[in-house]
Amino acid sequence: MILIDLTHNNVNPLYHQVISEIKRLIDNGVLKPGEKLPSTRSFAAQLGVNRATVYKAYEELWALGYIESSPGSYSIVRDRVTLAEIPEKSTKNLINWDLAANKKLINIEKLLSESFTEAANANEINFLSLYPDPKLYPVEEFQKCFYSVLRKHGRDLLGYGDIKGYYPLREFIANYLRKHGIQVTTSQILITNGIQNGLELILKYLVHSDKKILIEKPSYSSALPLFHYYNDNVIEIPMSSDGIDLIALKKIADKENIAFLYTMPNFQNPTGITTSQDHREKLIEICELYKIPIVEDGFEEEMKYFGKNILPIKSIDKHNIVLYMGTFSKVLFPGLRIGWIAADEKCIQDMSLLKKIGETSGNCFDQGVINQFCREGYYDKQIKRIQRVYKKRMMIALKELREHCPLDLIDYYKPNGGYTIWFELKNNPISESKLVTLLRKNGVVVSKGSNFSFSKLNKLSFRISIAHCDELKIAEGIHKIISVIKSIN
Amino acid sequence: MILIDLTHNNVNPLYHQVISEIKRLIDNGVLKPGEKLPSTRSFAAQLGVNRATVYKAYEELWALGYIESSPGSYSIVRDRVTLAEIPEKSTKNLINWDLAANKKLINIEKLLSESFTEAANANEINFLSLYPDPKLYPVEEFQKCFYSVLRKHGRDLLGYGDIKGYYPLREFIANYLRKHGIQVTTSQILITNGIQNGLELILKYLVHSDKKILIEKPSYSSALPLFHYYNDNVIEIPMSSDGIDLIALKKIADKENIAFLYTMPNFQNPTGITTSQDHREKLIEICELYKIPIVEDGFEEEMKYFGKNILPIKSIDKHNIVLYMGTFSKVLFPGLRIGWIAADEKCIQDMSLLKKIGETSGNCFDQGVINQFCREGYYDKQIKRIQRVYKKRMMIALKELREHCPLDLIDYYKPNGGYTIWFELKNNPISESKLVTLLRKNGVVVSKGSNFSFSKLNKLSFRISIAHCDELKIAEGIHKIISVIKSIN
Repeated sequence: MILIDLTHNNVNPLYHQVISEIKRLIDNGVLKPGEKLPSTRSFAAQLGVNRATVYKAYEELWALGYIESSPGSYSIVRDRVTLAEIPEKSTKNLINWDLAANKKLINIEKLLSESFTEAANANEINFLSLYPDPKLYPVEEFQKCFYSVLRKHGRDLLGYGDIKGYYPLREFIANYLRKHGIQVTTSQILITNGIQNGLELILKYLVHSDKKILIEKPSYSSALPLFHYYNDNVIEIPMSSDGIDLIALKKIADKENIAFLYTMPNFQNPTGITTSQDHREKLIEICELYKIPIVEDGFEEEMKYFGKNILPIKSIDKHNIVLYMGTFSKVLFPGLRIGWIAADEKCIQDMSLLKKIGETSGNCFDQGVINQFCREGYYDKQIKRIQRVYKKRMMIALKELREHCPLDLIDYYKPNGGYTIWFELKNNPISESKLVTLLRKNGVVVSKGSNFSFSKLNKLSFRISIAHCDELKIAEGIHKIISVIKSIN
Repeated sequence: MILIDLTHNNVNPLYHQVISEIKRLIDNGVLKPGEKLPSTRSFAAQLGVNRATVYKAYEELWALGYIESSPGSYSIVRDRVTLAEIPEKSTKNLINWDLAANKKLINIEKLLSESFTEAANANEINFLSLYPDPKLYPVEEFQKCFYSVLRKHGRDLLGYGDIKGYYPLREFIANYLRKHGIQVTTSQILITNGIQNGLELILKYLVHSDKKILIEKPSYSSALPLFHYYNDNVIEIPMSSDGIDLIALKKIADKENIAFLYTMPNFQNPTGITTSQDHREKLIEICELYKIPIVEDGFEEEMKYFGKNILPIKSIDKHNIVLYMGTFSKVLFPGLRIGWIAADEKCIQDMSLLKKIGETSGNCFDQGVINQFCREGYYDKQIKRIQRVYKKRMMIALKELREHCPLDLIDYYKPNGGYTIWFELKNNPISESKLVTLLRKNGVVVSKGSNFSFSKLNKLSFRISIAHCDELKIAEGIHKIISVIKSIN
């Protein structure tokens, strides 16, 4: 018989009182490990309380680790060792994690925090975010596909799957790439957890010993800390209006041991530059000559709005030196993290081993749902749908710029697709951070240029993205940018 | 007007003929880039075929990259560069990927292929697989939760999310761990893509310069290639019947610079050993003394069937030196890849940066579904459900062994939970591979002992797992193993 005094009509709920009393009895050793507690029914009767009160108390005691219970039998006092308390923030740790940690973490933290701009508020004009507008997510179609896949394949796809990815989806991607002139077989496709994961696999695969990575300057901001983690010697090659400077590339290729060249030939992030057919042919010629693998990031391959169609570098890759990366994140939604690499079969096989040791298996269920989505024709429809929306946004931005941009003060690059426009000031009347702050004070949030490069850029620059900006706000935003630029010159 | 001869009543379908004729006209330069093709309606009329035939041909030409089409307008011949053909297998690559690749790949490939055993056929007794039985997946509850989450949070959760993981799920895990005596706050939880990803993050975080990794011998086979990738100097400490040899640990700790110790205190994979409270206390004392972080793998925390409850090492970790890993893969299904690390807040913060650079974001939607699953109480129910099934399987295996195992020829460890039983032969009458082949010839598939260690084991060993084996086949399988062992001695 457990003796507990309960105070009815107290501010302290009855089940709380039961909990603290039993805890006290266990802590004092009155109730010993292995001892049975009374059943909820009999204990409730004895205490003169509702059975649910006792049940709730037992549940909480169980969660706290004081008692054990198994279905249909008595609750038992647990054999507890002294539990560690949640330490106060001020507790001094035995291990100094700063010393224990990989030294690269310091720079990675710095790179991440420098490129961090606080998210735009609802009342600000958001030219910051590059990820797709949630209003455009094809949620209903996704739901349909989920059901159909769960019904047809549920148990199969919820287990571990092929580390290279769900075969039918890989097959779809291989066929789909033919649309862009890329001729690959299913065995040349590796599904990745988005482009970022693809890039990391390539880094694991190709970066070792003293090999250097070549990137465009400026380049994709989120890739910089990743490159830094794998390699201290990233070489940045300046961009001209038609892609990276090929003469500079050749000079570097001639003297350095290079792991790969990372390039975004379409609507480059951040500059928006699309390289010409001629540039692509010369680029691959140089890389073939020096046997430099090209990592082609086709993250916005489907987002072309204007001008003539230029096929990916991978489409003219006769010697399998291009590793082409793509993603579903920009067209569908980024949360599912599904991208791919298309490359030489041997590379794919090798990288799948590297993927295996770090992940065991990909998420085949989600891949199955996306495969269904593609096979139903929803992918094509979704591309058309978002192209219409983003093209319109881009046209509004470009019209405003064409009509009002003071070209004596600021340059901008007119992209043929994608979401970004890159601005370069002709003079540097104020610092970059002051400019960005000033723009923000005027209600416009942009990305500062230095996010996109390890080293200092020649010109004061910033990037805007129309991916997340409401159509009605774009002209106003551009107008405000122009006013600010005029005001500081 | 395009002139094409079509042969009706031919074995070659009409739309194939249209495709090859238009391809020929484009390749010959008769149809030039930018030229319009006739509308499907008028072309069909001209050719005297069904409109669907032309439509199908245009679709295929589009997929092949020959033409472009936009909704509601004419199809146009594309400005194609010469497309690379799918190379023959025999094509010599310009880049020798073996030379380009990270040199560790060779060993990783070797480790993976050595530990590879061909999956069991339906007519074999499967003691090989450790992953959960698909028959036990809670598919219906999962579907309910999916629907509810998509309805309530769809658009939010399909975007990029908190790199540490979906907050409510992290909160659930933090609360849930209290059941096992682990006192952590939500900010001390990092969601990972399964345990393997958690282990990789810890490796990235703690392994650098000349630091060494300590592991149990034998240890988790799939961790070995991952450890090898990050560190060439893994030190294996032999297991006794109560966990790793503490005297050996102390000796090594005294002279080496150690990144961390990796241990599985419950139902260790492969040996099935559960260490005593006493062993855990001494282990943490040594690690505190030498300031060695402990990586505790709690992959089967919920799978206890027999004996007294022993709380995780993390529950007596007063100085935050334990990084505790858990997973939903074993209780729910592995395909979703959701696990977690519970550790010091500073470690979690640091590792989340490393996670960010390689992934940008986790899959918050799946995490939302699992959170719903847990909050609905399905997780608890599922644990009870699978515990019943696996406990029964384990009891059948142990009963058969108790009654028939010739202890003069073979030792086995009786586990208190989990799925595995470890066998060690007293003599080495034949080689390991011969033994495994012989067992397979007798219809039983097991994992060979050498999968679980970098170096040679003292005794001829193998592991069986009851996770995937039909209840009715277990006794028969054990019986066959015993017969084979008797026959070779």
